[in-house]
Order: sequence, then structure tokens, then C-alpha cells
Amino acid sequence: MPHIALTGATGFIGRHVLAELTARGFDVVAATRGDGTALPQYENVRWVTLDIASAPEQAFERLGMPDTLIHLAWGGLPHYRARHHFETELPAHYSFLRQMVRAGVKSVLVSGTCLEYGLRSGALREDDPTAPVTPYGFAKDALRRQLEFLQRDSGFNLTWARLFFMHGEGQAATSLLPQLQQAVERGDPTFGMSRGDQLRDYLSVAEVARHLVTLALSGKNPGPVNVCSGVPRSVRGLVEQWLSDNDREIALDLGRYPYPDYEPMAFWGARNKLDSVLERQ
Amino acid sequence: MPHIALTGATGFIGRHVLAELTARGFDVVAATRGDGTALPQYENVRWVTLDIASAPEQAFERLGMPDTLIHLAWGGLPHYRARHHFETELPAHYSFLRQMVRAGVKSVLVSGTCLEYGLRSGALREDDPTAPVTPYGFAKDALRRQLEFLQRDSGFNLTWARLFFMHGEGQAATSLLPQLQQAVERGDPTFGMSRGDQLRDYLSVAEVARHLVTLALSGKNPGPVNVCSGVPRSVRGLVEQWLSDNDREIALDLGRYPYPDYEPMAFWGARNKLDSVLERQ
Repeated sequence: MPHIALTGATGFIGRHVLAELTARGFDVVAATRGDGTALPQYENVRWVTLDIASAPEQAFERLGMPDTLIHLAWGGLPHYRARHHFETELPAHYSFLRQMVRAGVKSVLVSGTCLEYGLRSGALREDDPTAPVTPYGFAKDALRRQLEFLQRDSGFNLTWARLFFMHGEGQAATSLLPQLQQAVERGDPTFGMSRGDQLRDYLSVAEVARHLVTLALSGKNPGPVNVCSGVPRSVRGLVEQWLSDNDREIALDLGRYPYPDYEPMAFWGARNKLDSVLERQ
Repeated sequence: MPHIALTGATGFIGRHVLAELTARGFDVVAATRGDGTALPQYENVRWVTLDIASAPEQAFERLGMPDTLIHLAWGGLPHYRARHHFETELPAHYSFLRQMVRAGVKSVLVSGTCLEYGLRSGALREDDPTAPVTPYGFAKDALRRQLEFLQRDSGFNLTWARLFFMHGEGQAATSLLPQLQQAVERGDPTFGMSRGDQLRDYLSVAEVARHLVTLALSGKNPGPVNVCSGVPRSVRGLVEQWLSDNDREIALDLGRYPYPDYEPMAFWGARNKLDSVLERQ
């Protein structure tokens, strides 16, 4: 049985990854920042408190000397444009991961982001050059490059999971679908949103969690992998689908909000590499 | 008269920049790491000791409260492939520059590098995407991006001077032309080098220093600027030119050394932007 440690285990994605790991029968050491978040309880999970920003000592031992690390922790979200991401998070996470692979971790999966690609449109491929325009996308891109340089000196497997858009249980209340649900439940006459024509790539967070666990345990070294559906969907279509699935109605006030300026109008992930790595299991 | 501070003032380029500034009649506060390097003496230069890697306090005051900073300091060269560049230099220089612009510096010129472009061939333009493959090129590229993000919150002028190849007085003894000169002076029968067909962009360091001073004092905010000749030259041609200029002869052992793997076979700088910024003075 692999020794698995998971950071960011109380986050939106982390909770689903933890559920997936325990459903597959693994023992897990799960790390949380210790900010008072309620901890899901499982028989096979041991919780530890670990604040990566404060340069924790003996992190490898405290995490149960794992051979596989799934590293989802990251602070400062969802403020993509704060310098905090490269001033604080980037050096802290690099130091932590360097410490972990030097201590003996063999395989690391780290959550990246589609924002690494910047303003590139269309189907994004892992070997496209990155050109992030937000401090968040820049910091993740820089962390990946630093880990790739580190690999030249310290051998370890790196899966860099570029996450696209997710929906599902535990999503931040400020996200689109939770906002829609609240508007419907309040009985609002209209739901204000952007024009909704932008094309994005969505997966349920449960499916993302399944892919992340499979990738982390693959024993491969694929580098960046888009964790995505590969299917472009309009934001308006997503909203209408949710209303239809939940048998609810509300008038959409399209165009009330502008499009964000840090994302292109239409982008989604190419899924070939994900499919290829998953097939090789 | 502008208040000018210069870091890296005892380096290969820094010495020429200091000479150029004093020749133009400016008062300068010149910083050195205090590693015992002999300090050139000028009437209008005040020397201060400042180790940027050790997070100096009151750096703005110690540098004479400059409005213009020419920042050439950088440690760990010429080891382009050492992680030191992003593990140590990058955070130290970012912190130093952030401290300086917050304290009141209005215009900053920082030395970048053609290695930011990575393995791109041909005439390199400042708006080409960067894709560095060395830790040194990566760290410089990352510092530039971090400063561009900082500009959104703190207004200051940034000239990011991408340096290509230089030759001239004070060059490291391990560089090509000093090696050639030593071989000739020792009376070696042959001079071992690469095949020499690679195309590069060369300027004399004195000309680079003139451009850097003009750029730094422009009061403009051009961002990245190639400081280059714009003319591709073969390395073999450069060597033969030196022999001809100095009326010396030696047999060239072409192909004794391989080409470096972190540079493309043929690259040089597009010079349009440099010319355009210089013309606007």
C-alpha cells in the first residue's frame, strides 16, 4: 500500500479527493492549516495541522513519511490578482515541496490552473507556452518551472494537474451555480450574470477528484496534465442546464456584469494527455 | 540633476556604466557588495556597501534617496544552471526593488538577459513570449514579471534591459576573447573552440554602458528593451575579426567543444525598440 499524504484536505477539491482515497481503501495522512475548519472524519484518515506558509519543520515525518504527496494547499484564493500569490505562496510552497522530495517523497501531484495559459484561446494543450496575466496564474506557473528545475537535481515524479472549472458540493457560495441556487431559493425575479457566451471547460469536482487520485498513484512523471472535460460549454448553457436539471425557472439578466479581463472569451482544455495517462493505468 | 544610484558598480558592466555616468557629469551613489573588490575612484562618486541578498535596511536612504536606480547587481554568475538564481537571487532582488520604489524611486533600470527568450531562434523581439530553459533566464524573467505586477499597484518607470553578448575591458578571463588572447600570448599552436557557426549578437561593453545610461535617464517606461547590435555574427567570425584587428595569428581548432545545450544555434536581438527609445531622447 502506498503511503499517501494530502494537503489542502479541507478545501473544496481536497474534501472530494479525501473521500475518493478512503473509498478506494487507502490510509491517508490529511493536512489542514488548523484554521478551525470542521474536519471530515474517516476511519483510515489521520489529521495533522500544517501551515505551509510558516515553513513547518519535520513536515515529512509529521505527514507519515509518505511516498506519494497530493498537494492541493494554497492560500489567498479567490483573489487572483493579489501579489500575495508570488510574494508569499510561491516561495513557501517551493520550500515545502523541496523539503518533501529531499526527505524521500517519490511522487508529487500539485494542483495547477488553466490561468497558467493566460489569454490564449481555443483548445489549450499542455505543451503550449504559458503566458499568465494574473499573479495567481504566474505564481503557479513559476512553481511548476521551479519544480521542473528541481527534478534535474532530485529525482521525483511530478504530476502538475491543471484544473479548469469545477462545480459540485462544497463549492464557494460566491461561485456561479451556488449564486444561481440562492437566487432561485430566494425567489428573485431575475438572475444577473454576464452575457454568458464565453466558452469554458467544466467538470464535476467528484470526477476531478477521481482523476487526481488516479494520476497521483500512477507512478508516472507526466508533468503538466489538463484535468478537464475537453468539451467547450457556454456559461449560459451551464446555467440553463442547471435550471433544467433542477426543474427550476428564473429569468436571466444577461449582460448585467462584464466579462473578466484576465480570461479569454473562449478556452477549454485539450484532453488527449489526460486520457492517455489514465489509459496507461 | 537627477539623483542616481547604481548597484553592481564593480561588475564588468557596472564599471563601464559608472565611467559613462561620471563622464556625463553626474553625481552617483555606487553600491558594492563589500567583497573586497577594488573600487574605482571618481570625484563625483560616493561608494556604499550593500549586500542585496541580506535584505539591507534603509537601503533607499543609504543610496542617497535616488530618483533613478540602475540595478545591475546579481549573484551566482556565470553558473546559469544553478537553482541559486531563483532560490536566492529572485526573492532578494524583488524585495530590494519593491522597497526602493515604495520609498520613492521613480525610474528603475534592471539588467535582463537574452536567456529569457529560451530556445527561440532568429531575430528576437521584446514582445515575443519568453520561455527560458535555464534557472538564470527563468529567475530574470520571473523578476521582470513580478515588477510588472508591482507597477499596477506602485507607479514607477521600468526599463528592463535585455543584454546580449558583450566584449571589452574587464571581461571575465574565462570568456571567449580573453581565452583567445591568452592562447595567443602563450604562443599556443592552436585555439580550441566550438565549430563557431552559431550566430550571436555582440556589442562592446562601452556601447552597452552608453545605452543603459541613456535608457535609465529617459524618464520613460518602455519595459523590456533589447540592448543589442541587431546584427547576427558567427562566433568564428568574431574570433577571426579579433585576430585580424590585433594582427595576430593562431590556428583555430574548430569543433573541439560542443555547442551549449541551453542556447539556440542562431539568435540575435531585434533592435527597433532600442533605436526608437534612443531616438526619442
